[in-house]
Amino acid sequence: MTERLVVVGGDAGGMAAASQARKLRGPQDLEIIALERGEFTSYSACGIPYWVGDQVTNGPDSLVARDPRTFREKYAVDVRLHHRVTSFDLSAGLLAMSDDATGAELALRFDHLVIGTGAAPVRPPWFTEAIEDEVSGVHFAQTLPQGAGLRDEVAGLPGGRAVVCGGGYIGVEIADALHRRGLQVTVVSRSPELMSSLDADIAVELRTAMEKVGITVLTGTSAAGLTSADGHVTGVMLADGSELPADLVVLGLGVRPRSSLAAASGLELGPSGGIRTDEQLRVRRAGQVLPNVYAAGDCTEVWHRVLERPVHLPLGTHANKQSRVAGITIGGGQATFAGAIGTAITGFWADGVEVEVGRTGLSCRELTAEGRPYVQATIHGTAASGYMPAAPSVTCRLVADPTTGAILGGQLIGGHGVAKRIDVVSVAVWHHLTAADLVDADLGYCPPLSPTWDPIQIAARKLLTQLG
Amino acid sequence: MTERLVVVGGDAGGMAAASQARKLRGPQDLEIIALERGEFTSYSACGIPYWVGDQVTNGPDSLVARDPRTFREKYAVDVRLHHRVTSFDLSAGLLAMSDDATGAELALRFDHLVIGTGAAPVRPPWFTEAIEDEVSGVHFAQTLPQGAGLRDEVAGLPGGRAVVCGGGYIGVEIADALHRRGLQVTVVSRSPELMSSLDADIAVELRTAMEKVGITVLTGTSAAGLTSADGHVTGVMLADGSELPADLVVLGLGVRPRSSLAAASGLELGPSGGIRTDEQLRVRRAGQVLPNVYAAGDCTEVWHRVLERPVHLPLGTHANKQSRVAGITIGGGQATFAGAIGTAITGFWADGVEVEVGRTGLSCRELTAEGRPYVQATIHGTAASGYMPAAPSVTCRLVADPTTGAILGGQLIGGHGVAKRIDVVSVAVWHHLTAADLVDADLGYCPPLSPTWDPIQIAARKLLTQLG
Repeated sequence: MTERLVVVGGDAGGMAAASQARKLRGPQDLEIIALERGEFTSYSACGIPYWVGDQVTNGPDSLVARDPRTFREKYAVDVRLHHRVTSFDLSAGLLAMSDDATGAELALRFDHLVIGTGAAPVRPPWFTEAIEDEVSGVHFAQTLPQGAGLRDEVAGLPGGRAVVCGGGYIGVEIADALHRRGLQVTVVSRSPELMSSLDADIAVELRTAMEKVGITVLTGTSAAGLTSADGHVTGVMLADGSELPADLVVLGLGVRPRSSLAAASGLELGPSGGIRTDEQLRVRRAGQVLPNVYAAGDCTEVWHRVLERPVHLPLGTHANKQSRVAGITIGGGQATFAGAIGTAITGFWADGVEVEVGRTGLSCRELTAEGRPYVQATIHGTAASGYMPAAPSVTCRLVADPTTGAILGGQLIGGHGVAKRIDVVSVAVWHHLTAADLVDADLGYCPPLSPTWDPIQIAARKLLTQLG
Repeated sequence: MTERLVVVGGDAGGMAAASQARKLRGPQDLEIIALERGEFTSYSACGIPYWVGDQVTNGPDSLVARDPRTFREKYAVDVRLHHRVTSFDLSAGLLAMSDDATGAELALRFDHLVIGTGAAPVRPPWFTEAIEDEVSGVHFAQTLPQGAGLRDEVAGLPGGRAVVCGGGYIGVEIADALHRRGLQVTVVSRSPELMSSLDADIAVELRTAMEKVGITVLTGTSAAGLTSADGHVTGVMLADGSELPADLVVLGLGVRPRSSLAAASGLELGPSGGIRTDEQLRVRRAGQVLPNVYAAGDCTEVWHRVLERPVHLPLGTHANKQSRVAGITIGGGQATFAGAIGTAITGFWADGVEVEVGRTGLSCRELTAEGRPYVQATIHGTAASGYMPAAPSVTCRLVADPTTGAILGGQLIGGHGVAKRIDVVSVAVWHHLTAADLVDADLGYCPPLSPTWDPIQIAARKLLTQLG
């Protein structure tokens, strides 16, 4: 008898499960239906800043990894766009949905369910939906339609004033994009420094680079309201009562799991609101794992291997891995999702300024907040041999457990090519390697590409001397 | 009583031991004398191609990491230039040397000895020292004086014809340099493809890039002799009897350990001629470890952790690590040299063509030669998200043990920033991680820097399906 898999949400969290399950089970064995509220499937939200910044020119199509037609024709997935799920009856294997195109309310039976509802951008309390309806010029940059709207407005505002609320990854990347498009950009960050996932003394180099090209960076403050005239935003009011004039505002304050339907069905959520799952991405209700209901992607919490607890880490890498594991499990295969350790990279490239950032594991700030002891070493060097004229600068911080010497985290900031080098530290953190292991490592050396001692190894040597 | 450390050879193999020992023991406790045949200390031989290619302009000084004055003044190391050691009496703790400046023959007592005599470029049988004296225009590129000589001659040969004998790292890098300087370059390689440390089907991309800018690449053949007129080279005769006209010839045929003095002292050598050491870099004689005699750098063999035997891997990274361990040991500290796994990176960058190469562990070719079974997966992708206009291409091959799934090696070839990514594979090989571990890894993702699934992980996924 043909079973039915229903996937809720047409992006990474759901669709990788659909395609993976299809690889293992043919259409006669497994019917797959995917329900998507919008009109796109499997697109790169992370690519939106580069589309807004005109680096990606053939958007939104090029940001779509697999469109509905591809899913239908190549994967035999019945993709239903503009379908919004309104409730789950998990015990009965039923869900209710509305077809926004026709207004019809429908029920759908499932044998397997994958919840991939993603995350919604954080909406500050002063930006109510009512204000959103009345005041134009305020944007999120999370979905393709939002990206398109932002992009269109930017095109009509050459030389205009933009305020980006939020100094994290999205805030920095959107500031880069708006600066490229010729706007006067101010970034407002509540944290003492941009990128609070880095230690503040590391992140300051990013601020310096952004200020160098003329971006204003305001830290330790936040937006508290808007001013507007004739239905368009004219400024942002800050917490201290001052006002920033603005022709355009982008809200990049992070995202929260979209888990209200899951919560209403009694599924276990974490403190972040993310759905809790086991290693096969099966959800829990009343302490029991539901054997046929999965959740994956930004609507879930992810096991953090260094913190040793689940946290919300909304990132396409985890969504894809989780979804793949859910799909393999539904397909009858064996796979586990082993968690994450908070690796993240980004950069600022406008006007030929190049600053790349990478981080993994825990920062000093996070370890302090956890009350965990640590030893850290920080070095400033070059990412290529120092005598090469274009050798990019690099700052590397490694943090270790003072008892075991195990690397708990790392941060890199510097010029071209620096960010991805964090991957070595990531593998070290994951596998409990020590500073001594990093000193021993056989890393690549070639003068234009790396000094004889890789900067990570120089930091590891310094760490070794401090570990005694 | 003050002990005396004598270091033979003023480059990485010896001098890192000198500075490391000095950090742990002051001049009252340990006198350090360094003997160097030439006039430079601690310089980057690997940087010579970039100096020849005019990318490094302030050479040779900028290629010297620490000059004799620095060693004398900051490290209290008695550096004696133009001193050539002629024999060791290891039982008596004595060596004989000649001061080439004065012609004096001297004896020197030591309590600790570090042999860091390096390696000598391979000299083809037809290029005798007699011919070298008679025929100008034929160069090695291993020492600073050789680099200076090559550089001077290149300056007088705009548009001239250069033949580079050898298609390995040095051959490729020198070809890049000579092409930048406006010469018509031909590379002659005995192997079926350039860079025999890569599998041939991977390395072909490098040949394509070099041919694209007008370099001629001849593989599967080798030089068998020279032609000359008026004491200057006019051509290279190939093994098949054909002749390549040449105004300049560079010999980049690899290097052999300089170990004749060590051999004459009865020290244990490997089949490569490299000196055998233990993990503290102490040498062996008649099956016994000599507790006070060390060897480090290109004159030694290095423990290869995948081959599980010592091999000759002349590379600055190992020399520095070995020498550091010898210095710590002499200084009374604890350290071990854990070996290497054959990581190497390079690139070809002339005329805006960018091809970077990275390899680690064993190639398919090497595994076949070893008679070891393997499974391999090769993928072609992009090093950034595919929709980014400048996304560099990348080919990634991973090789694993079919029984354990442990990664045995990896190769990367592609555009900008690709080579250093081999470091993740290197750490994986070193720590016996599996293809599944690489799929699980939390690697950095940001559209301009990496796709959601890192190419290494895409290859690991493919490998997993083949491992079954």
